Amino acid sequence: MTDPAVVVEVLRGATVESVHCGSAVVVDAAGKVVFACGDTERPVYPRSAIKALQALPLVESGAAARYGFGDAELALACSSHGGEPRHAATAAAMLAKAGRTVEALECGAHWPSHAASSQALARDGGAPTALHNNCSGKHAGFVCFACAADIDPRGYVGRQHKVQRFIAEAVGEVTDTRLDETVAAGTDGCSIPTYAIPLDRLARGFARFGTGRDVGPERAKAFARLRAACAAEPYMAAGTGRFCTGVMTLLGARAFVKTGAEGVFCATFPDQGLGIALKCADGASRAAEVMMAALIQRFIPMSDDEKTAFARFLNPVLSNWNGIEVGRIRPAGALAA
Amino acid sequence: MTDPAVVVEVLRGATVESVHCGSAVVVDAAGKVVFACGDTERPVYPRSAIKALQALPLVESGAAARYGFGDAELALACSSHGGEPRHAATAAAMLAKAGRTVEALECGAHWPSHAASSQALARDGGAPTALHNNCSGKHAGFVCFACAADIDPRGYVGRQHKVQRFIAEAVGEVTDTRLDETVAAGTDGCSIPTYAIPLDRLARGFARFGTGRDVGPERAKAFARLRAACAAEPYMAAGTGRFCTGVMTLLGARAFVKTGAEGVFCATFPDQGLGIALKCADGASRAAEVMMAALIQRFIPMSDDEKTAFARFLNPVLSNWNGIEVGRIRPAGALAA
Repeated sequence: MTDPAVVVEVLRGATVESVHCGSAVVVDAAGKVVFACGDTERPVYPRSAIKALQALPLVESGAAARYGFGDAELALACSSHGGEPRHAATAAAMLAKAGRTVEALECGAHWPSHAASSQALARDGGAPTALHNNCSGKHAGFVCFACAADIDPRGYVGRQHKVQRFIAEAVGEVTDTRLDETVAAGTDGCSIPTYAIPLDRLARGFARFGTGRDVGPERAKAFARLRAACAAEPYMAAGTGRFCTGVMTLLGARAFVKTGAEGVFCATFPDQGLGIALKCADGASRAAEVMMAALIQRFIPMSDDEKTAFARFLNPVLSNWNGIEVGRIRPAGALAA
Repeated sequence: MTDPAVVVEVLRGATVESVHCGSAVVVDAAGKVVFACGDTERPVYPRSAIKALQALPLVESGAAARYGFGDAELALACSSHGGEPRHAATAAAMLAKAGRTVEALECGAHWPSHAASSQALARDGGAPTALHNNCSGKHAGFVCFACAADIDPRGYVGRQHKVQRFIAEAVGEVTDTRLDETVAAGTDGCSIPTYAIPLDRLARGFARFGTGRDVGPERAKAFARLRAACAAEPYMAAGTGRFCTGVMTLLGARAFVKTGAEGVFCATFPDQGLGIALKCADGASRAAEVMMAALIQRFIPMSDDEKTAFARFLNPVLSNWNGIEVGRIRPAGALAA
């Protein structure tokens, strides 16, 4: 791999303290690259950034409609959430529609990433369950898809399980990749497979996700349904204080953005017909967020008020334990304004 | 700044998922560079990696002796601790020796970084105080130094306060730098100033810290006292599950290692007379730890049993929420074995 280039700087006082390297690509609905920096052809694990594509079987099979899932449930199926009470309760309610409980989830348990929810859970003498796992909405969707399709959900995280094969087929179709045994794959934090896909293919897939172009009317309808759900319920797509929730709350249906572990983002700007994929080389979320913000600023027209509100995503302030501002993060290099 | 070079790789399955760039330098007691990679002359904020040097006024003024501080208190003064009960209690006891309480601390409060201690605190209906701040031992040392020296401790975090001026003088002497108004400075997480110092000067300072060479008998004695304290009480220098504690528990007095925020490490290997300073360019602790481990492996002879035990620092295993091994971290480039 070539040494990557700096795209984000972290300042303390007036001095650059740390730097982040990364790659990003933006393509239009025709598949033409309109912006690129770094290595955009190298396969990367998209991790949770493609949860909206992984939710396709749930929608396209009719399972979501059969169980009466609305915006909140569909947004949660696409989410990496903070484990806040409403997130956990909604995941439980999704499972209940299919006659299942938390026992059906195979994602593992962890304390809520939302600190106040974690402290409240501890204060109440509770302990985390799989419902608090940031992926519980996605997994509840997997279980519901399986149940509606008369597939035994047990072992649904396995690469050879029918659930994962339906997902891999859908993701492969959207991104023009064959996710078979020849593709590099790893095990994700929630135990499902994650397949290495080049950034430019991911961006192409998300241009389709935003436009419905080249995928047929049924899939285009599923894409529109999932985008509408996240635009209507951005809190369910991530949670309190989170970048994805904040951006989609501010910009509504104009931007669908989804983070993944290890510094990945996938996004679409439907009005512009653009698909976006990026990776911070070192895996830092703080940098991936600023990279994403720089691309939003570049391609989505905003009012002055929106620009003012957007500054906290583009140039986040770093504060210390006494609440004193000690630094800032800013786009740099190819992503500098 | 030139684009930095990759020194650490993060694998998921058999594929490199993320990479970290960085710089490192090792110098001997004569100041000769015996290993270097990256940019070792650029000033970096050492942050908490120089807490042992910042503890010099406490020891050299006689304050530590006057208050009867033993290994535990001195190690805590050099620590970035996890906020575990014994850490917080020891910081409180240090303050009590000087007739002060938690109210004297100006570092701010945060929940213990040690997750189980944080959950236990919440479960007991508690809330974090400045004693749980990872820097509370250092700050307790500052307050005790001030009180013993008849300096009003109020405002001791300020750059112009006598406490910080004594510290800057000591750190400047040890690292051959003038930490005056012309030097780039930022505000640290705990509100004290942090001064930008080139990595090679930091390494030179830590070669002196490990050997006592070129600093006079009194300072050499203070260095030896602080090193002995951390070797005897490595738990107080960081805490449960932490790299610094683990390494110093395994290697005893053969390695003094101290991490700082944003991917910095300072260290000395006294038997070899070496001083070490490094920075992961993107600020990631996981990579700075593996960089440090790679230099330990390169320069400190270990028995076969020690090598086996050391593997968890050199090639940490990444596990997911189900406890499944999903990847590893390894040194790369100039730091590869």
